[in-house]
Amino acid sequence: MENDKIVIGITHGDINGISYEVILKTLADARVLDNIIPVIYGSPKVAAFYRKQLDIQGVNLNVINAVEELNPKRINIINCADDDIKVEIGRSTPEAGKAAFNALERATADLQTGSLQAIVTAPINKKNIQSDAFHFPGHTEYLEEKFGTGTPAVMLLVNDVMRVAVVTGHIPVNDVAKSLSVEKIVEKLQALNISLKQDFSIVRPRIAVLGLNPHAGDEGVIGNEEQNIIIPALKEAQEKGVVCVGPYPADGFFGAGQFSKFDAVLAMYHDQGLIPFKAISMDSGVNYTAGLSVVRTSPAHGTAYDLAGKNQALEDSFRQAVYMAYDIYKSREINREIARNPLKVEPKFEKSNNKVE
Amino acid sequence: MENDKIVIGITHGDINGISYEVILKTLADARVLDNIIPVIYGSPKVAAFYRKQLDIQGVNLNVINAVEELNPKRINIINCADDDIKVEIGRSTPEAGKAAFNALERATADLQTGSLQAIVTAPINKKNIQSDAFHFPGHTEYLEEKFGTGTPAVMLLVNDVMRVAVVTGHIPVNDVAKSLSVEKIVEKLQALNISLKQDFSIVRPRIAVLGLNPHAGDEGVIGNEEQNIIIPALKEAQEKGVVCVGPYPADGFFGAGQFSKFDAVLAMYHDQGLIPFKAISMDSGVNYTAGLSVVRTSPAHGTAYDLAGKNQALEDSFRQAVYMAYDIYKSREINREIARNPLKVEPKFEKSNNKVE
Repeated sequence: MENDKIVIGITHGDINGISYEVILKTLADARVLDNIIPVIYGSPKVAAFYRKQLDIQGVNLNVINAVEELNPKRINIINCADDDIKVEIGRSTPEAGKAAFNALERATADLQTGSLQAIVTAPINKKNIQSDAFHFPGHTEYLEEKFGTGTPAVMLLVNDVMRVAVVTGHIPVNDVAKSLSVEKIVEKLQALNISLKQDFSIVRPRIAVLGLNPHAGDEGVIGNEEQNIIIPALKEAQEKGVVCVGPYPADGFFGAGQFSKFDAVLAMYHDQGLIPFKAISMDSGVNYTAGLSVVRTSPAHGTAYDLAGKNQALEDSFRQAVYMAYDIYKSREINREIARNPLKVEPKFEKSNNKVE
Repeated sequence: MENDKIVIGITHGDINGISYEVILKTLADARVLDNIIPVIYGSPKVAAFYRKQLDIQGVNLNVINAVEELNPKRINIINCADDDIKVEIGRSTPEAGKAAFNALERATADLQTGSLQAIVTAPINKKNIQSDAFHFPGHTEYLEEKFGTGTPAVMLLVNDVMRVAVVTGHIPVNDVAKSLSVEKIVEKLQALNISLKQDFSIVRPRIAVLGLNPHAGDEGVIGNEEQNIIIPALKEAQEKGVVCVGPYPADGFFGAGQFSKFDAVLAMYHDQGLIPFKAISMDSGVNYTAGLSVVRTSPAHGTAYDLAGKNQALEDSFRQAVYMAYDIYKSREINREIARNPLKVEPKFEKSNNKVE
């Protein structure tokens, strides 16, 4: 079934964090190669260092110069770092930032030409990667500039029990309320709705929307963003065909397990979504950037400098990111196929309300 | 051991919610009477209605006119409602608000004279209880006016795994950042510290403090309240003898289970504390008002109109509130005793750093 495999680029992220540990531990399980052809954008030298330092068995790397040379049965690696690159475990260094950026540039170029079908990005350090060429708060914004589709990119966190997206991301709490608008929430809901259909093959997604304020504002007693922004946005999105309900008080929503009744939850700000997501299932989260023309996933954790080099990092999140990239790519493929060959509608159904959305 | 029992007043809250259900189910277990003498401030008529409607066995009420008439071996009830009071299950009515307020007034009067040793308040509806006499956002502020001690009252949520307090309460998210100040955080930390010692008998409490912004501000990249307010407050509180650490990024803090290393967590705003508290342990939370001269607890849930009259409410939270009121009263008693009879310090220790705080 070689033809069913997809080529996934893996960018090495920050070489001084836990990225090589989770990449190598994931690829050490040979079953991963049943479904994917991995191409690491990194440094064979750094990989060898960590493989030895962490005593990881069963990973034999095939060093190649370009993606066209890949061996479909092996773990391929393209060197994106200087030959004299130095690992400094647990430290943020300029050369680590440069190597992280080079890997990202090279992988996205191969994604653009179609040589890669998806990428999984290991965590970067958001400070040392900054340069004239990389001036983004993170991967998401960088990728949105290259692969945006008109609808906004949505950071979607996915684990076994829930999918959570946020309207506002890495901004101060003091800016959250003034950053909300009907338009922004409607756009996010539409992008989320499309993603749930094409990326997760959910025919008719149900989305829960959280309130902004404590108790979702208690009918205007504690803040008025629910009345003035969120409820009108819900109505407009519903009119545009999005099945969405809310606004829910965030504390009770997660406490009562209501997330299990929905395909996704839209939170208003970072911690409102990420606190419950991590509290309920820390080690198994995947960060998926919905709304791009390409497929990109990453683990929900960061560089974790404090854990680096100790052989204590869990690769679960990274492994799930790899499999999710595969699943999403396949889901998109199937949905494109369906769109090309729609079922012929029998005459007796023609006047029904069943629309192909 | 009749002398070890304490008299606890139970206010009936909103008669159209789940309050009678959780009160009666709690008191139906006769073991509660081993430790406490309950006096319900409510309505014998409404109690009889729910006892029949929900088919609750084993609760025989002793109707009395005043707390002085209580029978220490029985469940006592004082009528605080009109004789023609009508239950309208699941609805907010003005007469329910009036009955809730009357019960509260009567119970706090008995608390003031020392006839009650503690109170447990069933949930009220924060809208229908409002009047010229009750113009507070909730129980906490009402009780703070009557029983304040100079230090601010602190809403402390307690369950089996954590204690969480919040700096700001029922205010819009847009007002949170501007409501924070070094002084306010220091005051809350001091009040919390005193409560952990005297109410929970923790000799040297350790308190974790959360940041305000995503990633606790990422060293000033995402908001500056950590640098300008929270970190200076931590330093000042530490100088005043409070053992406190932070600021922690809230999502990772709860996700990694770090709360288990601390005696309490101070969150900056309502949802930051209540989302993880409820997500991790919804049914077993108790709301304790620290910093009052008297002991008051309540269940962490609200009136739950949607569950009322269906025999589906869990009494766990209410039962724990009753036992916690008992435990806190006893802890205070012991600590007063210790303060009255401090251990004589042997000369050789006199110059050590061991201070009685």
